[in-house]
Amino acid sequence: VKRPLSSKSDSSGVSNSGESSKESSRCSTPVLDADRTDRLRDKMKRRIESGDHWFSLEFFPPRTASGAVNLISRFDRMGSGGPLFIDVTWHPSGDPGSDKETSSMMIASTAVNYCGLESVLHLTCCNQTKEKITAHLNKAKRLGLKNIMALRGDPIGEDWVEEDGGFNYATDLVKHIRCEFDDYFDICVAGYPTGHPEAESYDNDLRHLKEKVDAGAHFIVTQLFFRAETFLRFVKDCRAIGITCPILPGIFPIQGYHSLRQLVKLSKLEVPEEIMQVIEPIKDNDAAIRSYGIQQAVEMCKVLLASGEVPGLHFYTLNREVATIEVLRQLGLWAEDPRRPLPWAVSAHPKRKVEDVRPIFWASRPKSYIYRTQDWDDFPNGRWGNSSSPAFGELTDYYLFYLKSKSPKEALLQMWGEELMNEGSVYEVFTNYITGQTNPSGHKVMCLPWNDDALAPETNLLKDELEKVNRRGILTINSQPNINGKPSSDPIVGWGPAGGYVFQKAYLEFFTSSENVTALLQVLKKYEPRVNYHIVNVQGKNITNAHEMQPNAVTWGIFPGREIIQPTVVDPVSFMYWKDEAFALWIEQWVKLYEDESPSRMIIQYIHDNYFLVNLVDNDFPLDSCLWQVIEDMFALLDSPRATQEEGSQS
Amino acid sequence: VKRPLSSKSDSSGVSNSGESSKESSRCSTPVLDADRTDRLRDKMKRRIESGDHWFSLEFFPPRTASGAVNLISRFDRMGSGGPLFIDVTWHPSGDPGSDKETSSMMIASTAVNYCGLESVLHLTCCNQTKEKITAHLNKAKRLGLKNIMALRGDPIGEDWVEEDGGFNYATDLVKHIRCEFDDYFDICVAGYPTGHPEAESYDNDLRHLKEKVDAGAHFIVTQLFFRAETFLRFVKDCRAIGITCPILPGIFPIQGYHSLRQLVKLSKLEVPEEIMQVIEPIKDNDAAIRSYGIQQAVEMCKVLLASGEVPGLHFYTLNREVATIEVLRQLGLWAEDPRRPLPWAVSAHPKRKVEDVRPIFWASRPKSYIYRTQDWDDFPNGRWGNSSSPAFGELTDYYLFYLKSKSPKEALLQMWGEELMNEGSVYEVFTNYITGQTNPSGHKVMCLPWNDDALAPETNLLKDELEKVNRRGILTINSQPNINGKPSSDPIVGWGPAGGYVFQKAYLEFFTSSENVTALLQVLKKYEPRVNYHIVNVQGKNITNAHEMQPNAVTWGIFPGREIIQPTVVDPVSFMYWKDEAFALWIEQWVKLYEDESPSRMIIQYIHDNYFLVNLVDNDFPLDSCLWQVIEDMFALLDSPRATQEEGSQS
Repeated sequence: VKRPLSSKSDSSGVSNSGESSKESSRCSTPVLDADRTDRLRDKMKRRIESGDHWFSLEFFPPRTASGAVNLISRFDRMGSGGPLFIDVTWHPSGDPGSDKETSSMMIASTAVNYCGLESVLHLTCCNQTKEKITAHLNKAKRLGLKNIMALRGDPIGEDWVEEDGGFNYATDLVKHIRCEFDDYFDICVAGYPTGHPEAESYDNDLRHLKEKVDAGAHFIVTQLFFRAETFLRFVKDCRAIGITCPILPGIFPIQGYHSLRQLVKLSKLEVPEEIMQVIEPIKDNDAAIRSYGIQQAVEMCKVLLASGEVPGLHFYTLNREVATIEVLRQLGLWAEDPRRPLPWAVSAHPKRKVEDVRPIFWASRPKSYIYRTQDWDDFPNGRWGNSSSPAFGELTDYYLFYLKSKSPKEALLQMWGEELMNEGSVYEVFTNYITGQTNPSGHKVMCLPWNDDALAPETNLLKDELEKVNRRGILTINSQPNINGKPSSDPIVGWGPAGGYVFQKAYLEFFTSSENVTALLQVLKKYEPRVNYHIVNVQGKNITNAHEMQPNAVTWGIFPGREIIQPTVVDPVSFMYWKDEAFALWIEQWVKLYEDESPSRMIIQYIHDNYFLVNLVDNDFPLDSCLWQVIEDMFALLDSPRATQEEGSQS
Repeated sequence: VKRPLSSKSDSSGVSNSGESSKESSRCSTPVLDADRTDRLRDKMKRRIESGDHWFSLEFFPPRTASGAVNLISRFDRMGSGGPLFIDVTWHPSGDPGSDKETSSMMIASTAVNYCGLESVLHLTCCNQTKEKITAHLNKAKRLGLKNIMALRGDPIGEDWVEEDGGFNYATDLVKHIRCEFDDYFDICVAGYPTGHPEAESYDNDLRHLKEKVDAGAHFIVTQLFFRAETFLRFVKDCRAIGITCPILPGIFPIQGYHSLRQLVKLSKLEVPEEIMQVIEPIKDNDAAIRSYGIQQAVEMCKVLLASGEVPGLHFYTLNREVATIEVLRQLGLWAEDPRRPLPWAVSAHPKRKVEDVRPIFWASRPKSYIYRTQDWDDFPNGRWGNSSSPAFGELTDYYLFYLKSKSPKEALLQMWGEELMNEGSVYEVFTNYITGQTNPSGHKVMCLPWNDDALAPETNLLKDELEKVNRRGILTINSQPNINGKPSSDPIVGWGPAGGYVFQKAYLEFFTSSENVTALLQVLKKYEPRVNYHIVNVQGKNITNAHEMQPNAVTWGIFPGREIIQPTVVDPVSFMYWKDEAFALWIEQWVKLYEDESPSRMIIQYIHDNYFLVNLVDNDFPLDSCLWQVIEDMFALLDSPRATQEEGSQS
């Protein structure tokens, strides 16, 4: 009987018995998630092969800094739905390649670096020198951008004349990118299902598209259209002349009468009669038009996806989220429960692709962590510890706009108190943040200096205990429950590949008074070696029972066919850097809300100057966390006059 | 109130807030077990400080190669009792510095490298040139030895004359070691509680000892003696003249009348009257003398330990184990349940001190693994994978005496069968090894080519299942049960520091026929991705569903205040090296027992040529292992005629 065995390892480089043992026997790098290492073209290829439809989202750069802060929040929210990529348009009049927070370049860079989104930066070449274009591309590469949408762009001025040696067509730009950067960038080009408005003819336009693809483009995104058959005929025509790359339909959910009119005017598209007939009668009813737009887009997308010609949908969001998300939800493409590759927000910068362990301290401030480690040349991989790595970035220069609070000063005052009476007022702010209750002035506390967002779902698991201790001046800024082997698909604490199990040690981090710390230290003696602690004040006075160099892994996962992943650690060294940031946030975000010499200001300043930052790890992860008992014991000790006397006599 | 807080991190190099961020923020190396990194002098210091008494064991090199094999087994057995160190005497007439398997040098090297024992090599300097001594020391260092017992040695020939510029006293040797090797070696010297037999006087001898210590010795081991007060007076006298280092009493449990007489003659010691009075009447009753010797040693040791002057006991074992172990047991010093730093047998070679992960394949053959990786310059630390590491040593040159079976050919034939009838005879041998039952010729199968020892206690947990499958031709050579978080102190599966939890994925490795493999592959489809497998034959035909480079961690531990430790992996690359070794063992140990052309030989050769080596990992460690079900399903498929036909039609 012939054995029906096929050898899967023919391509693995494993030598047969005869030729063994001369080369290295150990693998060079651990295996990474394909999603973090693959190029966009490869991701598309995989999704096409598996028949797994995707979507992508187009945004334009904002006009103001606060618009930028909003857009970045939107990236986070819409990123959670699982787009394959987002793209950011190039606004030649908005200084698009500059370092301004509103530039196309910086918005796309933020999406990649801080929001972890695969991003495509548009680039137009019209009226640009080759040097300028090359400089833009070099900068994009340096910032971690890997994909370019190559466009001609609208000529500035009325009469456009071809320049010799300049960029006259997107094809020239595609060729230039390939020539100067070889295979580095994935390139997207634009397709026009009804022909480019300036093209001589539809066929002529198709030939131009073929030239762009032949010059080295990897995929096509089309101009918007209103009928599925428009797109499907276009794809058929593209295939007929030999265009084989992915062609993504540009979807525009109608969101309002006026925006539709304006878009039509700009793009020189005709809105089909059947759509105008519905819209005209309801043109003053925004809600009705939006609702129709969603329904129309859903119907069209269904036809497109069912055709088998459409691997993914590209949405022109106009920087709005409601309509697009609703369409995606109805299509079943919105990932309600996005799988997290790691328990923290990863960056999509290519040099961070091996990063798989971080200190827990920045859990609520991942963008700050990414910013402060952006100059690191190598990232920890597998374990925290590499003496060749550079230091954390300085605190002084990182208060960039997108690391500041999203909320304006007035909102912060409403949340954190126009006027504080005493330290107890601060305890109340923390407590209200945990409970979600409104404060006496009727406002909900939606954020704290250390937590720019609402409570994480995981933290919600600890809500009751957190409320209790915050009320008494244990001002918690970070915590996680212990987890003893939940499936990696768990909607709250899961992360990583399917079929695995995730674990956590209970963690609690808080500010508290020096009186509390004195009692806490007494209590902690009973919990050796179960509980590890670091206790530090703003001057850097540091009390710990942990090893001075050894990190404590507090989150880890076990997956099929893999080494252990331990993505979060408590480590003594980076805690001292975090401590600077954590104390500085009292000043930067809170003290500065109040006038000099005001009692409110002096209260926060007092806390900053006198409180300790404490972190506690319960190493016994299979048992119920003992950290709440530690705090209770501390209060019990403080409440017992005899114990306090004893303590006093020791000091 | 002043805070009674002391800063523990003053010495940690962590900068205070003002001076932060310029240096590297990440630690350079993970923290290692002090027991694997400390020098002997530091281990002693720690044990003295904690009041934790230790013992050490002295051996002499064997005369024959088979004696060496026995002595190495004894190292393993006595090593499990937890000696702080062992020492190996220097036999000038036995070519002690050579590469012979019986040399002092090679025996001590084996103890360090293969048995993981802290070892002291004796070295005598009498009648030796400085060059020769330096060469010995260089060789010892190269082999991983870190401790030397510096002795003068007995002059060869009757009349000994001091040589100018030569080594006349042990002091010269101590000075030479310090001069040539600085602080590299820990140095032990000999003390004589009743004075050296050749010394002018007891006081003169004490002064010589002081000179040796002042020259750089770290501790003293004494000549044997028969009364506790002899030793205690000696210690008092040493302290009086300023000898402050540890002084370890040499304990000699009397084991027989003649050996005592001989020893007394050699050492020129007098046996006290009270002992002779007991022994003389029973001099022909070995058992009675041994029993008295044990009792006498225990009583004396109790007095010594109770005196507070004795941090540890040094035993002259005469290469026997029963009496010494019994004395240690009665004293409560024998570690019945030794803590394992890692789940596999560590080597004590200094360059392997960072080694903390190995492939599971060599689990029963750790000495072979150590041998085959002895030329590696760096060892995996934290994760398996480092492209700069060298390859595994060649198979061809590693069949050293101490990697061969401990059993002689006749014993192997009795265990594995003088004459095999068919493949079923081989299944029976494997089954008898698992069950511990005698074979038809009345012999127990105590070892297999892949397992030179009896079943591990852990494997015993799987005994029933293993018996069942071996009976049907699943010839298991390695296995471990799944473990979902047992305490690190668990007597069977525990390892690592106290207070931790250990985990395992179920693992099964076996040889089986290609017919079985065909059915197995069918069955395994149902178990994707829960079960990872590698299936390979002697030609290297390799079938796997695992990633070609990614190791699968199958043993790991979570400990207080530490990163995760994952000491055992299944990795596809090293499996191909192991496969060569695993198949070769059929030939080297089994085929060669039989005559050319004999049916027995042809049966084993057929298995070697046609069977596959299979390993299976069940990734779902929290659930009951499914690997037995996989095997059962395979047999069910084979037993169903229809299924076999289906299979046939696919090939």
